[in-house]
Amino acid sequence: MKILLTNDDGIYSLGICALYEAFIQDGHEVTVVAPESERSAVGHAITLNDPIKVKEIFRSGEKYGWAINGTPADCVKLAIEALLKEKPDLVVSGINLGANAGINVLYSGTVSAATEAAIKGIKAIAVSIDTFKDPEYCAAAFYVKDLANWFHKYKTKCLALNVNIPSIPAHKIVGIKVTKQNTQTFKESFEQRKDPRGNIYFWQCASFIDDTGDEDNDLAWLHKGYITITPIKFDLTQKNCLKEIEPPIFT
Amino acid sequence: MKILLTNDDGIYSLGICALYEAFIQDGHEVTVVAPESERSAVGHAITLNDPIKVKEIFRSGEKYGWAINGTPADCVKLAIEALLKEKPDLVVSGINLGANAGINVLYSGTVSAATEAAIKGIKAIAVSIDTFKDPEYCAAAFYVKDLANWFHKYKTKCLALNVNIPSIPAHKIVGIKVTKQNTQTFKESFEQRKDPRGNIYFWQCASFIDDTGDEDNDLAWLHKGYITITPIKFDLTQKNCLKEIEPPIFT
Repeated sequence: MKILLTNDDGIYSLGICALYEAFIQDGHEVTVVAPESERSAVGHAITLNDPIKVKEIFRSGEKYGWAINGTPADCVKLAIEALLKEKPDLVVSGINLGANAGINVLYSGTVSAATEAAIKGIKAIAVSIDTFKDPEYCAAAFYVKDLANWFHKYKTKCLALNVNIPSIPAHKIVGIKVTKQNTQTFKESFEQRKDPRGNIYFWQCASFIDDTGDEDNDLAWLHKGYITITPIKFDLTQKNCLKEIEPPIFT
Repeated sequence: MKILLTNDDGIYSLGICALYEAFIQDGHEVTVVAPESERSAVGHAITLNDPIKVKEIFRSGEKYGWAINGTPADCVKLAIEALLKEKPDLVVSGINLGANAGINVLYSGTVSAATEAAIKGIKAIAVSIDTFKDPEYCAAAFYVKDLANWFHKYKTKCLALNVNIPSIPAHKIVGIKVTKQNTQTFKESFEQRKDPRGNIYFWQCASFIDDTGDEDNDLAWLHKGYITITPIKFDLTQKNCLKEIEPPIFT
């Protein structure tokens, strides 16, 4: 396969490097096009009003890819439209430090990179590991490699998959679930502070609501030790409301 | 109604000012919480790794609202969790300079602000006008005011509406259509240049595919002179693929 790798943790993150090693070892043709530094929580942002700089990156004397001063969605667009000679067979985004499940999916640059590929008609997998501390990227990359081989051949209308991997030893992973996004809101708060000149500023704090219910959703299965796979769409229309809403008549 | 206004063109844009005037004249309680400068195409980005500064803004000696060094989604979160005394009855985002229809919806900060309100269980309308030149904001604000009054009372499962207004004289507007998001990709390209030091950079260029088909979608109706209303969701699961995809079994 021709694989394009990207992420939102930046081109020098260990998560993307683990994917690179795993896919190269498997004999795939891999190119990395990723942000030059961390661009977490940028959602589906793109860079329209500034120039996008690119820098070739080498590892041990060999071409690794390009570092971009843009967002994950920019990376996918630029790679496909300008940097790569041929369209990739698959885009893989990650491995992200921290789960991208539930409402997080909307804020995630990692997931938006996969969505961007899907908009362009290319299959894509976003991958995240459910920890912020000492992630086992190499073990996770092993699963991603198998998932990529499976998804590449799988006949489906869905082009983008959002995958979350629990941060537990391999033998404790219970299984794989295809499931939907949890839609609960965060517990959110803002911590108010004053700078040395007396100006007010805030830090954004957020945490998941602990109770994910016993329902069939990504957060619930992830917490039970499953790898979760959620098919992702880019049509945001709430279709069940199309017939429900009668347009108003103004006089 | 208690109305929270935001946008992605910045607090000093004429589009949000036109909404403020229209709603105030109608006797509503209006607060503006908007980015201090333009934050277009930021999608659903949020600010987690930097402090969010707030600045009170006055117009003619009266409190107008708060300018925020954050994204539209940040504005909605911060307003509801920290700045407003009470939850608003309605969030209105716009009036955006340029349509937010079709695939643009995913990149739009304007639409993401409305989605953010919906996540928090609050009704919201994102509004954009289909021109980048000499927009008739005051005429558009007249429609938005009527739409806001109608939507506030309307019983529906949908919490967020994406509204696009054609940039034509009022008597030429054909009607209002509740319709779905066009999902065609852009015609995209990147213009390659060299800086004075010989480094390569790119400008992102994109335009809609002209043929929107005769289909029932936001771009098609907008081009025919209709105000379009698209109900927007924040569950990105492609549900028709949940049963279609069998999880792989790894050995």
